[in-house]
Amino acid sequence: MGVLERIKSPSDVRKLTTAQAIQLASELRTFLVQSVSQTGGHLGPNLGVVELTIALHQVFDSPRDTLVFDTGHQAYVHKILTGRNDFSSLRKQGGLSGYPSRAESEHDVVENSHASTSLSWADGIAQGYRLQGGSTRHVAAVIGDGALTGGMAWEALNNIAASKDLPLVIVVNDNGRSYAPTIGGLAHHLDTLRATRGYENVLDWGKKALNRSGPPGRLAYDALHGLKKGLRDVVMPSGMFEDLGLKYIGPIDGHDIVALARALRRAKDFGGPVLVHVMTEKGRGYTPAERDTADRFHGIGPIHPETGLPIAPSRFGWTSVFSDEIAQIARQREDVVAITAAMLRPVGLAEFAEQFPERVFDVGIAEQHAVTAAAGMAFAGLHPVIAMYATFLNRAFDQILLDAALHKAGITIVLDRAGVTGDDGPSHNGMWDMSLVGIVPGLRLAAPRDEPTLRSALRDAVKIHDGPTVVRYPKGPVGPLIPASEVRNGIDVLAEHGANSGTRVLVLGVGAMAALAVEVGSSLAAEDMLVTVVSPTWVLPVPAALVELAADADLVITIEDGLVVDGVGSRVLAESAVAGVTVPFLMRGIGQRFVEHASRAQVLAEERLTASDIVADAKRALNR
Amino acid sequence: MGVLERIKSPSDVRKLTTAQAIQLASELRTFLVQSVSQTGGHLGPNLGVVELTIALHQVFDSPRDTLVFDTGHQAYVHKILTGRNDFSSLRKQGGLSGYPSRAESEHDVVENSHASTSLSWADGIAQGYRLQGGSTRHVAAVIGDGALTGGMAWEALNNIAASKDLPLVIVVNDNGRSYAPTIGGLAHHLDTLRATRGYENVLDWGKKALNRSGPPGRLAYDALHGLKKGLRDVVMPSGMFEDLGLKYIGPIDGHDIVALARALRRAKDFGGPVLVHVMTEKGRGYTPAERDTADRFHGIGPIHPETGLPIAPSRFGWTSVFSDEIAQIARQREDVVAITAAMLRPVGLAEFAEQFPERVFDVGIAEQHAVTAAAGMAFAGLHPVIAMYATFLNRAFDQILLDAALHKAGITIVLDRAGVTGDDGPSHNGMWDMSLVGIVPGLRLAAPRDEPTLRSALRDAVKIHDGPTVVRYPKGPVGPLIPASEVRNGIDVLAEHGANSGTRVLVLGVGAMAALAVEVGSSLAAEDMLVTVVSPTWVLPVPAALVELAADADLVITIEDGLVVDGVGSRVLAESAVAGVTVPFLMRGIGQRFVEHASRAQVLAEERLTASDIVADAKRALNR
Repeated sequence: MGVLERIKSPSDVRKLTTAQAIQLASELRTFLVQSVSQTGGHLGPNLGVVELTIALHQVFDSPRDTLVFDTGHQAYVHKILTGRNDFSSLRKQGGLSGYPSRAESEHDVVENSHASTSLSWADGIAQGYRLQGGSTRHVAAVIGDGALTGGMAWEALNNIAASKDLPLVIVVNDNGRSYAPTIGGLAHHLDTLRATRGYENVLDWGKKALNRSGPPGRLAYDALHGLKKGLRDVVMPSGMFEDLGLKYIGPIDGHDIVALARALRRAKDFGGPVLVHVMTEKGRGYTPAERDTADRFHGIGPIHPETGLPIAPSRFGWTSVFSDEIAQIARQREDVVAITAAMLRPVGLAEFAEQFPERVFDVGIAEQHAVTAAAGMAFAGLHPVIAMYATFLNRAFDQILLDAALHKAGITIVLDRAGVTGDDGPSHNGMWDMSLVGIVPGLRLAAPRDEPTLRSALRDAVKIHDGPTVVRYPKGPVGPLIPASEVRNGIDVLAEHGANSGTRVLVLGVGAMAALAVEVGSSLAAEDMLVTVVSPTWVLPVPAALVELAADADLVITIEDGLVVDGVGSRVLAESAVAGVTVPFLMRGIGQRFVEHASRAQVLAEERLTASDIVADAKRALNR
Repeated sequence: MGVLERIKSPSDVRKLTTAQAIQLASELRTFLVQSVSQTGGHLGPNLGVVELTIALHQVFDSPRDTLVFDTGHQAYVHKILTGRNDFSSLRKQGGLSGYPSRAESEHDVVENSHASTSLSWADGIAQGYRLQGGSTRHVAAVIGDGALTGGMAWEALNNIAASKDLPLVIVVNDNGRSYAPTIGGLAHHLDTLRATRGYENVLDWGKKALNRSGPPGRLAYDALHGLKKGLRDVVMPSGMFEDLGLKYIGPIDGHDIVALARALRRAKDFGGPVLVHVMTEKGRGYTPAERDTADRFHGIGPIHPETGLPIAPSRFGWTSVFSDEIAQIARQREDVVAITAAMLRPVGLAEFAEQFPERVFDVGIAEQHAVTAAAGMAFAGLHPVIAMYATFLNRAFDQILLDAALHKAGITIVLDRAGVTGDDGPSHNGMWDMSLVGIVPGLRLAAPRDEPTLRSALRDAVKIHDGPTVVRYPKGPVGPLIPASEVRNGIDVLAEHGANSGTRVLVLGVGAMAALAVEVGSSLAAEDMLVTVVSPTWVLPVPAALVELAADADLVITIEDGLVVDGVGSRVLAESAVAGVTVPFLMRGIGQRFVEHASRAQVLAEERLTASDIVADAKRALNR
């Protein structure tokens, strides 16, 4: 019987001998490769934190102590050690979430999978425990070096450093990369720490001496730390974390369970905030991942466990169309530059970067900076294109409003994975973008419906120099072409059915929902209605011609892959009201809720975003 | 003739002798005190940067070189030196803006008055110049130590540090405070730098030696810097900016024009990013400001220039009501804690802090951290109340959505200065809040209309533990009480006019717009219409009873002090459409535009938010 099968809860982990813990790590790696290769998921990050997660559960007493994982996709091992080992339906409807989930376990606290939040969570929780007299409850946050480049992490560090008695341990999981290698001044500093501090060698001598004299406590720590500081002032530079007032321990070999547990215990016993710098290897112990220099199997689809090759090679998707078109544009327009927030390859900028390396800026996980720096570049005469996942746009609303739009900066934001993405759960669905940026004065948004409209939207966007533009498209493969049968006052008409009498229905399909709109239109036409199906590529601000079309209808149906509240449909409704048009509207999109992980198709079905449901709803609306 | 009157442009500044520059500083201070005491404005910050601004214009050639001021309220001296010296209508309609303004001058670049953006702007502009071969064009950004606590500044520093050849000078204007004393690890570090580096004393010796041998250049700088580093490694800690890879010069006496110009020139000549640490005193040279320990006359109304006492003592306002009520709640509820982002006094938390100092958290200019730390505190059993100006809420949208709402965190966000604030211009109007947070699932928003409804909204909000709440109110005095004549299905009915026949009009007044709604209602009733005027305190999500009332009307008029697009009115319209109600709507609020500085009354009039305009529009809508 292996060690892993005997682990039902963290208390089982604490009972293990060192040899058993090392055996457990090995079994966990095998389990991860076997199971995630079948389901897909965040394999690389979790292979990197096997020993770290074991050590955390040896030292901290979850759920009495609180463990917070930044971005959460590195919590698979934590899930297994807290009694969740059925990974057969990982990230599938009804199966385990790919992130921590309060509904799954009392050991999970933070579900937000956007980066850089963990230190703020940990600070708040620790402050809460302290104020209520629970200073014996500890909080440990695990944050990647990549996530430390996000501004929130800095805000939290600044606060934590000032709370001298806060029982809070910050574990920096330093693998030198998030999706891609970490960049910037911080990466430089972490490199320096790694090179000059030599894996706690200086400390080892002192530690052995002290271990003989009793268990480590605050006094022991201070003695040790003082010793270290004395030595270091001669032989090595001090670090920025200590400059801020944070105690620093490290770097620690993140695959040495004994060293990890020792460092974590020392940090926990200190009684104030301590940063533990842990060096790990993403993809550790799985050769195909270790050999993958691009992203170390960060997030994968199903693969063959032996070779690491994908079972279903990814299809030609929206990202590839963008990738190709933006590279073409870059060849023709010297002023076009590209910006990514640590996701060069996932957003499709690798080709651009190969051809024009000096014209691509990877700013780290820093969407705020990305947008404002882009406004600065636009002022200096460039046209920046920021490519990101739609869900991360939320981070930069104020910058889009006050840096880009107020200053009429000609920047283009390209949103990949807009709308329902599904398997990554509530914080990855890119469903807020249209409701959010629709507020911004002067901003124009395009939702292309197929390959040619994506290419043309992008070309149009980079020609606009007096305000920000957004181009958004979903995750996955591009569907077949949906040509316009006619362009009426600038609006693409996809289909027109029926004679000159009967109930008149206008169907608006936003972006990739155009296919569904066409389907709905055909079904309604079969019921003897006069149907016009439209899909303007540029939907915000609402084209005046769309309101004119609405005025002629008995029912307007709007279908979009985004939040229905304040979505495009609701905007057409409001513009119609302003124009004195009071036609009934059936607005369909994603309801105002957080969508649990499931496939995109399952979520769309749940939201009644199917032709049959919409046709049924339309008939009900007309009979009202 | 004084020196000041001869300054028409920066080239005049560059011609001054040292004695004349010092004289200019003195004349500028007198001018600032005399003029800002009459108009009101940001007196303290500008008194602090008189010498710094002179030195910047001596060293940098604006507009060929670009000067960026963080938050912008420290740009009065810059305005004067670039030819704008008519301060008689400062911050008034048609007069000078209180912030940089591209419409005013080619010397102004960044109008955004939210903190911490300047480094991202400067990075983008410098990257743009560099890419286009303009590496002889320099960029200088002036950022306060308070603004460095904001996450964006960190994101930018991380990027700038990695661009070794970027001609960019970062001036840290360190006065140890933003509105209030700067807190956190960064403040600790700046203190250390100040204490250990001794105003460039170590450097002075080397400088004198080098000055004899020719003008400073990169070689001289490197020699100097190398010398400094050698000495320092023995006698003082190295700094975090250097750890990140940024060159550091300082601290410099910010009121010594010669030292400033020397340091800035050295930084400019270096040819890569350099951080110049300048120590200034907010309110410098004006005794009443220097004696004001609270905020050093940060932003003032009109005052007597000799005494510094306000001419019109501030009236009992919304902030005072909040201040009193939250302190009362704190006495009864031990779990209630308060959070401010560096604005303890302006938002009305001073009384709370005096009574319960350990239950108030000033997190620095860090709205993202404020919200997420609050979610953490809620998890730990507290009920945090975050008080901020409405305009700064934009910074924390993602955190409200994914940290607070997704986790059903019982936190309360109190928005002061919601709606039109007027004289601070486009980036201070708190007009986006309702459109923004209305997107968030499970979030409840109250817009109280008078003192009792503010008190009750706050008490209700802190009782809600399963999701975030927002309470918003405007800037300025609270109006008279507007009691409900009746509560119908939970909706406050303020007035009901007319008999049982005739045109039926429903008037919804959101928050402080209730008074205007009552006025509109009376005027319409005088035209023989049947009018119901309502003002529910909790407006989001839209109460179902409101939709029922709308269904009975021939016209619905909604009046709100916020963006009309996606505002409360538009939300009532959409909910009505979902319920199959197709009544005409007249939705009134602030148009989708950036509102230039003017008084609140002027802006409301521009937006036709007056009774006569709304009545006229209503009659037009009914006749359509």
